[in-house]
Amino acid sequence: MTVLANGGTHLSGPVLVIGTGLLGASIGLGLRARGIDVALSDISPSTEAVARDIGAGRRLAEAEAGFAPQLVVVAAPPDVTASLVAQALEDWPSAVVVDIASVKAAVLADLQESGADLSRYVGTHPMAGREKSGPVAALGDLFMSMPWVICAGEHSSPDAVKVAEALAIDLGAVVSRMSAEDHDQSVALISHLPQVMSSLVASRLQETPPAALALAGNGLRDVTRIAASDPKLWVQILSGNAPRLVNILHGVREDLNRLINTLENPTADGARLDMAQLISEGNTGQARIPGKHGTPPQSFVSFTVLVDDTPGQIARLLTEIGEIGVNLEDLRLEHASGREVGRAEISVLPSKMHGLVSALTARGWKVVE
Amino acid sequence: MTVLANGGTHLSGPVLVIGTGLLGASIGLGLRARGIDVALSDISPSTEAVARDIGAGRRLAEAEAGFAPQLVVVAAPPDVTASLVAQALEDWPSAVVVDIASVKAAVLADLQESGADLSRYVGTHPMAGREKSGPVAALGDLFMSMPWVICAGEHSSPDAVKVAEALAIDLGAVVSRMSAEDHDQSVALISHLPQVMSSLVASRLQETPPAALALAGNGLRDVTRIAASDPKLWVQILSGNAPRLVNILHGVREDLNRLINTLENPTADGARLDMAQLISEGNTGQARIPGKHGTPPQSFVSFTVLVDDTPGQIARLLTEIGEIGVNLEDLRLEHASGREVGRAEISVLPSKMHGLVSALTARGWKVVE
Repeated sequence: MTVLANGGTHLSGPVLVIGTGLLGASIGLGLRARGIDVALSDISPSTEAVARDIGAGRRLAEAEAGFAPQLVVVAAPPDVTASLVAQALEDWPSAVVVDIASVKAAVLADLQESGADLSRYVGTHPMAGREKSGPVAALGDLFMSMPWVICAGEHSSPDAVKVAEALAIDLGAVVSRMSAEDHDQSVALISHLPQVMSSLVASRLQETPPAALALAGNGLRDVTRIAASDPKLWVQILSGNAPRLVNILHGVREDLNRLINTLENPTADGARLDMAQLISEGNTGQARIPGKHGTPPQSFVSFTVLVDDTPGQIARLLTEIGEIGVNLEDLRLEHASGREVGRAEISVLPSKMHGLVSALTARGWKVVE
Repeated sequence: MTVLANGGTHLSGPVLVIGTGLLGASIGLGLRARGIDVALSDISPSTEAVARDIGAGRRLAEAEAGFAPQLVVVAAPPDVTASLVAQALEDWPSAVVVDIASVKAAVLADLQESGADLSRYVGTHPMAGREKSGPVAALGDLFMSMPWVICAGEHSSPDAVKVAEALAIDLGAVVSRMSAEDHDQSVALISHLPQVMSSLVASRLQETPPAALALAGNGLRDVTRIAASDPKLWVQILSGNAPRLVNILHGVREDLNRLINTLENPTADGARLDMAQLISEGNTGQARIPGKHGTPPQSFVSFTVLVDDTPGQIARLLTEIGEIGVNLEDLRLEHASGREVGRAEISVLPSKMHGLVSALTARGWKVVE
């Protein structure tokens, strides 16, 4: 067996997955693809059956006497995670037990209160998953190249941590190590804050006249995209991370109050400076978000090409970009109202842009900007 | 000459463009491509020279005696628009004069105060333009298929309105008619609100530790994308539309206060219902935003394909989708940290998805979800 960079080895299994929704079933599929024996258990017989049907694992209830998993993954909603972890620690005395809930400190606190021996427990959080839910949407590559946070508390034994990290590594994820508290603070800022702000904007549109909505551009679409999230799941996440998120929202409220005061007196001394400062601070914050594949932010430049909305046009554009010999760093299609013309926003390295725009224009493409 | 759907005809010109930044120069380029005579004027000699150099038009100062434009387009920042319009109405007594500022009621109010005869004035707003600025970034197709709002007030003569609409139509835009007040209310909601909310989120990231930023996914990126906007321009827009935006922000503040109260007592009776309601109302609002090309919202379904980040891979994927015979409705590349694997989010009509996923999988593509 290969020794991993963290000094551990790959999982040998078996692995028991408790909770076979999107994430649990995806974990099962990914491990099965590596030849690991996976047993499944879910409170809903139909959910468990679908997970089995797609090949995520075999029925725990039919496991042989003496079945002893190396690892138990509790992949259930945040509300029930701690109790399932505590039960698993008891039921499988030689297994490492991990959870994958979006909030970590609340789960850990519940477990500590329960008095369970937590040396075999490691809290984790794979930052993957999308709008679709349920095992029918599961796929083994869900975690490929996505971050997977490992929150090894003082309680976790080093061997348990190695097994937890092996799970993430074996599923192709990028391991990130931090305390439960740092994790919760981080996700409050980079995940929960944008979610609630997106919902606050989108909820304003409930009675907007269609004529106004027709003017919507990519700005509104981008800001409200994640407002399509599932209320049932997010109620659990927000409840579980309420104190940290509310601290951040206190700061946002201060900023909003200041903006409102400024806009109520837009011609007062200093009003324009206040407005400029808000936008400018937004510039600074936004520029700190890492770019694609962990590259420095804003490493690329972009331009837009008009494409007819016919099959093959965009493929042809990308093929020609490949022929010209420039690597496509990013691509976004823009929504346009009315006529059937699409706009493809092409991102490349700054040094490549001029030559690419010239070459595409020479080949007849309409470069808009 | 063709009679347009609005009963008018195409522009005959000449057209005078006052202000040759990104928008003015793009208008010049677009009209020149249709064979229309365009004269240019800008307060900055170098800006005007660049616009001439790229072919947006000829120098007004060298226009022949008796030069009489059919249309004058004031394409200057909001702050100076009204005075330039008033001057143009005086300087060119037979021309229709339009402006293209992002705010309309404030400009109109200033003009009404000036006592000018506004029968030849029509306020307009082309909803196009991007992060790049200046004539060097101008292109004649900038307005193609984008909304162009025409705010014909009671003051505008029907002939003036026809000329204003011909400008938009001749540049390939989609004409939208509404009052200045309705325009400002609309853009306050669908453009200015998302801008400030994006900036409010992004400004929180100024001192976020890199380890937290490394966990950022597309949610944060989407919400903060427009936080990269230009402060100088946005100060003018926010000042010009302050009353309407601040009304909307009062409502947002109420919602934020309610959310903060709920999160400060997350286990209280009704707390979870409150949280669910916010997310659910966001679902409703977001679903009302029109989809691509004015299609009903959420007409498409999507799945993700893993692609190696090598030149040609994405082109190959799209070519094969074309070979399979399915029209690509939308495409987004996802950023992933760590390994060099990209994720392409493919959107298609619901009836096409199953077959396409099967066909791609059979061809060896890794469909993640």
